Amino acid sequence: MKTRQIVLASRPKGTPTTETFRFEEITLPEPKDGEVLLKGLYYSVDPYMRGRMNDAKSYAPPFELDKPIVGGVVAEVIASGSEQFQNGDLVTGRLPWQEQIIASAKGLKKIDASFAPASYYLSILGMTGLTAYFGLISIGKPKEGETVVVSGAAGAVGIVVGQIAKLKGCRVIGIAGSDEKISMLKDEFGFDEGINYKTVDDMKKSIGELCPDGVDIYFDNVGGEISDAVLSHINFQARIPLCGQISVYNNTEVATGPRIQPLLLTKSALMKGFIVGDFESEFGEGMKHLSQWVKEDKLKFTETIVEGFDQLPQAMLDLFTGGNTGKMVVKI
Amino acid sequence: MKTRQIVLASRPKGTPTTETFRFEEITLPEPKDGEVLLKGLYYSVDPYMRGRMNDAKSYAPPFELDKPIVGGVVAEVIASGSEQFQNGDLVTGRLPWQEQIIASAKGLKKIDASFAPASYYLSILGMTGLTAYFGLISIGKPKEGETVVVSGAAGAVGIVVGQIAKLKGCRVIGIAGSDEKISMLKDEFGFDEGINYKTVDDMKKSIGELCPDGVDIYFDNVGGEISDAVLSHINFQARIPLCGQISVYNNTEVATGPRIQPLLLTKSALMKGFIVGDFESEFGEGMKHLSQWVKEDKLKFTETIVEGFDQLPQAMLDLFTGGNTGKMVVKI
Repeated sequence: MKTRQIVLASRPKGTPTTETFRFEEITLPEPKDGEVLLKGLYYSVDPYMRGRMNDAKSYAPPFELDKPIVGGVVAEVIASGSEQFQNGDLVTGRLPWQEQIIASAKGLKKIDASFAPASYYLSILGMTGLTAYFGLISIGKPKEGETVVVSGAAGAVGIVVGQIAKLKGCRVIGIAGSDEKISMLKDEFGFDEGINYKTVDDMKKSIGELCPDGVDIYFDNVGGEISDAVLSHINFQARIPLCGQISVYNNTEVATGPRIQPLLLTKSALMKGFIVGDFESEFGEGMKHLSQWVKEDKLKFTETIVEGFDQLPQAMLDLFTGGNTGKMVVKI
Repeated sequence: MKTRQIVLASRPKGTPTTETFRFEEITLPEPKDGEVLLKGLYYSVDPYMRGRMNDAKSYAPPFELDKPIVGGVVAEVIASGSEQFQNGDLVTGRLPWQEQIIASAKGLKKIDASFAPASYYLSILGMTGLTAYFGLISIGKPKEGETVVVSGAAGAVGIVVGQIAKLKGCRVIGIAGSDEKISMLKDEFGFDEGINYKTVDDMKKSIGELCPDGVDIYFDNVGGEISDAVLSHINFQARIPLCGQISVYNNTEVATGPRIQPLLLTKSALMKGFIVGDFESEFGEGMKHLSQWVKEDKLKFTETIVEGFDQLPQAMLDLFTGGNTGKMVVKI
């Protein structure tokens, strides 16, 4: 049986382009014992995937040249060589960007599309939700009455972080790149305040005005000058979970900026990079809370759903221009 | 009764000079109930005191202009209005730079000069030892077989950090500013390797050669380019206690350098500024370990003892040119 896949055609220097990707037709064998044949339904498109396009040692091995891009996928079982799964089951796993996929049953998890939309298992009920949960709860350790600033606030992780911080009794300020996004954060997701970094006159001053008691937690998705402005307002014993640095992912040289160690020192502040996998042993606990909040309608979510397998490369590129609100998902 | 004190004459712009300080004669009253009259014996001279000379909000309030400098002092009780202390007792506390001092008995702790030299209560059996202990143990969390790099390694905190790391089974590399200091670290304090940052050709390459398995803990006392070189070799899940940033204390503008957040992110690394006071509730526990190691001769120490109250300002200035090995103490 033939199907199409999207491979890494070349390692991007700077911003990826459509040339970074290549569509190929391949022939799939029949699923063997313990394998299933899947039809892809939803493909997760995430900023961290940019890092895997570089040939650099990191927490995740780089994508291989001429091999398919791999990410979170929700798929339907269309043929099964495993007792675990039957035709029609919906599953999620880390899978290649292919229209149809042969996969070992071992790495797959069955999902319940009656509880929440299937795509949510890529996001708020999947890695996105867990990333927000552990970054905020385990590193940020929010306490009632504290001030939390979230950059990339209208992105998939940001909107979850803000809502969990509100559930923990914090004051929450979101930074995003359009007035529409700011309105959404305040009106739909309960953020207390928002700053449009593209139109604000003086980010540092604006943070100061919106955070009269200083910043206790800065959940950083973007890095760069936005972070410089927020850091200038951190309180003693502040916590700074580093979840993303999208502002520098496409840099070809090391970015420079103010040295932050003197500030972290005088504030006894903690800065911690993390990936969700650091908390793998606690995923069950995190998922319990997320599911409960979703069920009680205390945790809402939004997605930017792009239709068509052919649109996957462009959806990836759009992440870097803020083309998404909430999770970027491609649906087939 | 008349005595002399050293006050902050002006806030230094950049490196302090002898003009930063002023000697004054004052008249002391008799000690009241609950107070004691002290004769200063040893005065602690520490890099962090530079920060208090600025008029900047920090963990410790700034020194006040025209008021005495305050720091760790070991003193002898020469008149007592407190049942807690008798004439001849040796005590330690945070006290003004005065030859004779009236102090409340409350903030003083009696010390035992038969257990260790009196000056050690300012250092290895005092704040210096506790700083090294909690920075390394509570933030660094050393595990057997890990690689620990210490900058400012021949300073008071550095030599203690290196020895505790050895006691925990780590491989320890010290960075210091003279060949004599490097020899001392290796021969007297058991460091595995050392780098003279003043003569090394390529610090980054040198760290790489001496740390073939990467750096698990970087205990940072200095900041700046030395830290850039070490950070380029950190391992996944590395820990970076920030104890000092002596390379930038005298800067008049914010130092710039490579942005480190992308690195901390891809390495899931932790960076944490701290002051010893953050661990106040655990001081007893820390002191128990330090005393035990000193008693068993597992933890050695060295001091640079300068004689004479008049030398206090110069001793402070010498810290910034590496004039000390181990703790800088002024003895009267």
